[in-house]
Amino acid sequence: MKRIADSTVRRLSMYLRYLEDLDTQGQQTASSDELAHLCGTTPAQVRKDLSFFGSFGKRGLGYPVHELTAHLREILGLEREWKVVIVGAGKIGAALANYRGFRQRGFKIVGVYDNDPTKIGKPWGEAIVHDMADLARDIQREEAPIAVLAIPSDDAQDVVDRLVAAGIRAILNFAPAQITVPPHVSLKSVNMAMELEGLSFALTNSLASQGAA
Amino acid sequence: MKRIADSTVRRLSMYLRYLEDLDTQGQQTASSDELAHLCGTTPAQVRKDLSFFGSFGKRGLGYPVHELTAHLREILGLEREWKVVIVGAGKIGAALANYRGFRQRGFKIVGVYDNDPTKIGKPWGEAIVHDMADLARDIQREEAPIAVLAIPSDDAQDVVDRLVAAGIRAILNFAPAQITVPPHVSLKSVNMAMELEGLSFALTNSLASQGAA
Repeated sequence: MKRIADSTVRRLSMYLRYLEDLDTQGQQTASSDELAHLCGTTPAQVRKDLSFFGSFGKRGLGYPVHELTAHLREILGLEREWKVVIVGAGKIGAALANYRGFRQRGFKIVGVYDNDPTKIGKPWGEAIVHDMADLARDIQREEAPIAVLAIPSDDAQDVVDRLVAAGIRAILNFAPAQITVPPHVSLKSVNMAMELEGLSFALTNSLASQGAA
Repeated sequence: MKRIADSTVRRLSMYLRYLEDLDTQGQQTASSDELAHLCGTTPAQVRKDLSFFGSFGKRGLGYPVHELTAHLREILGLEREWKVVIVGAGKIGAALANYRGFRQRGFKIVGVYDNDPTKIGKPWGEAIVHDMADLARDIQREEAPIAVLAIPSDDAQDVVDRLVAAGIRAILNFAPAQITVPPHVSLKSVNMAMELEGLSFALTNSLASQGAA
């Protein structure tokens, strides 16, 4: 399969979300116009995104909602369970461990890992906090391919190196640090301070262009 | 100022982070090679990103760390305080209210807003939970331009409409919903389920290309 842009994959996730709603409501078909409107994009973009993966709709009839839902789940790899370890039993770790969307989409949290002895063994969301010392062993035993990194930035690269050595193949990073992974490991980073700085840049910029700064 | 890509602004944030570290360590100058290495990009990209905003470095001498730090803080709008309201006193709201990075970068949390009577009036991170009914009034009184949306998706667009009507000009959205804002409002969305789906797509794709799926 050729390389698909991240932005395309994100839109596929979004189409899936709305198609599932439509499917639940019993709607049989959806046009590219309707999907585009729901997802804040253009009909041409919808058709282009879906065309990467085959020919789904029928001209004039729209896309069959139920089938396209199933196809998108398969394309996104959601027709199976993915085991996930969460590293860091802080607030972010707790938010993630409680997040219903994860379970609904087939992500099973194996455990939350921390090295704070007052947290180890306690429930954390619907998971249990385990000792960081057991992280590599558990990743191997459970064959968990995905790790969510929710720890302070100082230790981030060290922990990433341990995760990679233990066999992790995909990392969702919430640590506010630049981390590097080998080519066979997928990495996505969410940096909340950076997102806010993007907003302050936009605000500063629009203030300046109005001459009001 | 011409339109700057989001990806450029994100790299500026990252350069700033490392330059601040170097500045704290007393380093006087930094080359584009060094910045590129720290931030996982190329020297040419560093030079291009910074050239949007003027001429900073001297050929052969590198960038003056202290001055460039100050310039970048100014460019990103971090030389002033931004007031922020957090909507939703759940786990994400708590993580954000506690996040030290916000305060360090000049984002001041005015309050956390929720309509759960058992939460109103209680401390939440370092903020206090206020009644959602007071949200519009407080945004106007405090002249807070930024809102962080950390509520379930069902109510998201309604709340956004209220925020916009109250004068909010930038929204960081953690609700797993597609929301729309008028052109004068900046919007950034962080959708954690979507990020995980991007990873499952990557994993599925790499499994498939190895013929091991």
